[in-house]
Amino acid sequence: MPNLIAIETIEANCGPRQQWLFVRLEAEDGAVGLGEASDSGSPAAASAAIHELFVPRLLSRPGEPSRVAEALRFLGSAPPAGKVSGLTLMTAASALEMAAWDLMACRLGLPLAALLGGPIVDAVPVYANINRGLPDMEACTFATAGAMAMEAGFTAVKCAPFAGVRPLHADNELIEAGLRRVAALRESLPSNVALMVDAHGRLDRVTGPRVARALEAWDLAWLEEPSRFEDDPGTLTATAAATRLPLAAGELLGGVAAYLAMLQSGSVSVVMTDVSHNGGVAATLAVGALVRAFAMPLSLHSPSGPVATAFSAHLAAALAGVSSMEYAFSAQRVKSVTALLGAPEPVAEGKYCLSKRPGIGIKLVEQELQRVGHVRRSAI
Amino acid sequence: MPNLIAIETIEANCGPRQQWLFVRLEAEDGAVGLGEASDSGSPAAASAAIHELFVPRLLSRPGEPSRVAEALRFLGSAPPAGKVSGLTLMTAASALEMAAWDLMACRLGLPLAALLGGPIVDAVPVYANINRGLPDMEACTFATAGAMAMEAGFTAVKCAPFAGVRPLHADNELIEAGLRRVAALRESLPSNVALMVDAHGRLDRVTGPRVARALEAWDLAWLEEPSRFEDDPGTLTATAAATRLPLAAGELLGGVAAYLAMLQSGSVSVVMTDVSHNGGVAATLAVGALVRAFAMPLSLHSPSGPVATAFSAHLAAALAGVSSMEYAFSAQRVKSVTALLGAPEPVAEGKYCLSKRPGIGIKLVEQELQRVGHVRRSAI
Repeated sequence: MPNLIAIETIEANCGPRQQWLFVRLEAEDGAVGLGEASDSGSPAAASAAIHELFVPRLLSRPGEPSRVAEALRFLGSAPPAGKVSGLTLMTAASALEMAAWDLMACRLGLPLAALLGGPIVDAVPVYANINRGLPDMEACTFATAGAMAMEAGFTAVKCAPFAGVRPLHADNELIEAGLRRVAALRESLPSNVALMVDAHGRLDRVTGPRVARALEAWDLAWLEEPSRFEDDPGTLTATAAATRLPLAAGELLGGVAAYLAMLQSGSVSVVMTDVSHNGGVAATLAVGALVRAFAMPLSLHSPSGPVATAFSAHLAAALAGVSSMEYAFSAQRVKSVTALLGAPEPVAEGKYCLSKRPGIGIKLVEQELQRVGHVRRSAI
Repeated sequence: MPNLIAIETIEANCGPRQQWLFVRLEAEDGAVGLGEASDSGSPAAASAAIHELFVPRLLSRPGEPSRVAEALRFLGSAPPAGKVSGLTLMTAASALEMAAWDLMACRLGLPLAALLGGPIVDAVPVYANINRGLPDMEACTFATAGAMAMEAGFTAVKCAPFAGVRPLHADNELIEAGLRRVAALRESLPSNVALMVDAHGRLDRVTGPRVARALEAWDLAWLEEPSRFEDDPGTLTATAAATRLPLAAGELLGGVAAYLAMLQSGSVSVVMTDVSHNGGVAATLAVGALVRAFAMPLSLHSPSGPVATAFSAHLAAALAGVSSMEYAFSAQRVKSVTALLGAPEPVAEGKYCLSKRPGIGIKLVEQELQRVGHVRRSAI
């Protein structure tokens, strides 16, 4: 198999809340694999981690794309403590691993889902995360965004209404404002449309149960991370015990042992995982196997750019038991991604259409990358 | 990717306890993938399952090797009840899935371990299962077989001393004979050599604890399946509670939910799984992820022919946390496999040496297959 010759990172500034970081592996025969390392906390830090931590490791043992996994494993066993946050390191590592899989599937001429043994399906259902397209936080703006998602054919919507709320601060006015946003959105949506609320870990042992019970009025599919399991399992478990709302959590967990602990705690009804943060494709398959063993729903967290979204779609097809997948929906995204891909992102009627093309099935348009992106290249 | 054109099964009669069943997928460009469906209960039934159940399903939707997984999933969801045993069906399905992975890795020019993201290691440790090379069941024959394993460089040995013992039959003389075989073998082995005893599910709630406690004298690495978890979880758990010997089990379990139940029962210290029976490569990765979450040792059960052994070696390299792997050691096997592969099996000094060749790294010699095997071919 031809050796790798370069790793590129591309910081693409595609507008508000669309600072995406793509990773590109290039082999000596010109074959390319794409990954994405967005939402790591800092695109610059994730890019630096790739060029300054991973590249030297690959340089010392150059080789095939599959060797990327070896470099990642080494760093996993000896992380450069203090130099970079755990989330940044995991996100950078995940993107490299994703790119190696895309490159290998492209070489085989197989869609990634097929390489992973997935069923040959045409599309996987996605729900619209409306957070990133909101011009302001007015309740009526949430309703408008919901209406736009309906127009675009989605049948499930997620919002994050609790901006500014902090754990241990009893921000009652902010919480009330958040509840009003949920009410406005729910009332604007047909009753057969599923609604999910993401609290981004902003609640605590007092506000978590209170907010969850208040939200019971609105027929939610789930309440996501009133608190984060990894911050304090007890708070999430207490919130779960206090409400009949299903809770979802897990988007930033890494490693199957962490997921096992969350499953065993009984605190969640829906497990979330994110291919951009959990270690990549193999890690997502591992989490999928664990969640399947518990017969629990798995939802793929995927609020980032078009590359991570394409990986999530292929993984949703490959994994038995994936119940849903996220898609960051906004007019700005549709425009940005159409320019980046040279074609509209294949999302229609609430589904991501899986391409029959090799790998994840998308390439980035060079000219657009030059326009919106900052490319850094390391030869290896 | 070029389509499949044929599936072959090869019943190879390589001497006593070496009736192996190989499976070969062939694509239109001549590329080949190997799998193995031995020890299914009946080679003829497993072969018939492949040609009469799987082939028609593939015929109805011909395609790439990755489509094999789709055919298997269909049969998994609608098994032809009554026509074929569950073990036979799982073994046949596993072999086809294995062959699809070998073919895909060969196309990529990558060793299977590398395609699965495994570390680039030169070798994985194996222990010698001496069962299949014993000319008789005398205690001194066990000692002789152990000495041969030492000469060949192994550092761990497994035996199955309880021939004829049946659960619920209090076969005390047979049990005593079994214990004498263990004693003779242990006394013939250096103290730094690990010894494992496989009871093949022959014990019950009375004899299991009694035999386990008697075996405590002999410093075993584990006692394997005094009873099978799937036959009665309570008996295995009771035996575990009655002894300080670590128990191993799981070689015939299928599906992550079954492994989760065994892990949660607390009855085993070592989890076993067999790529030839659990569903194949993807299933082994899934079980590996689950076992890793529990931070338990995983041992790859692999008493069959050279193809299944090669898959186990690549999976041992790819999976974090595999603590050991089985190898059926006998003079007859060395001879048979050397003829089948056209070269000695790459086992030396207690290790299986991973080849850098694509796929699982072995091919079968056509002339030898014609001599010892019965080939059945279905065009697809």
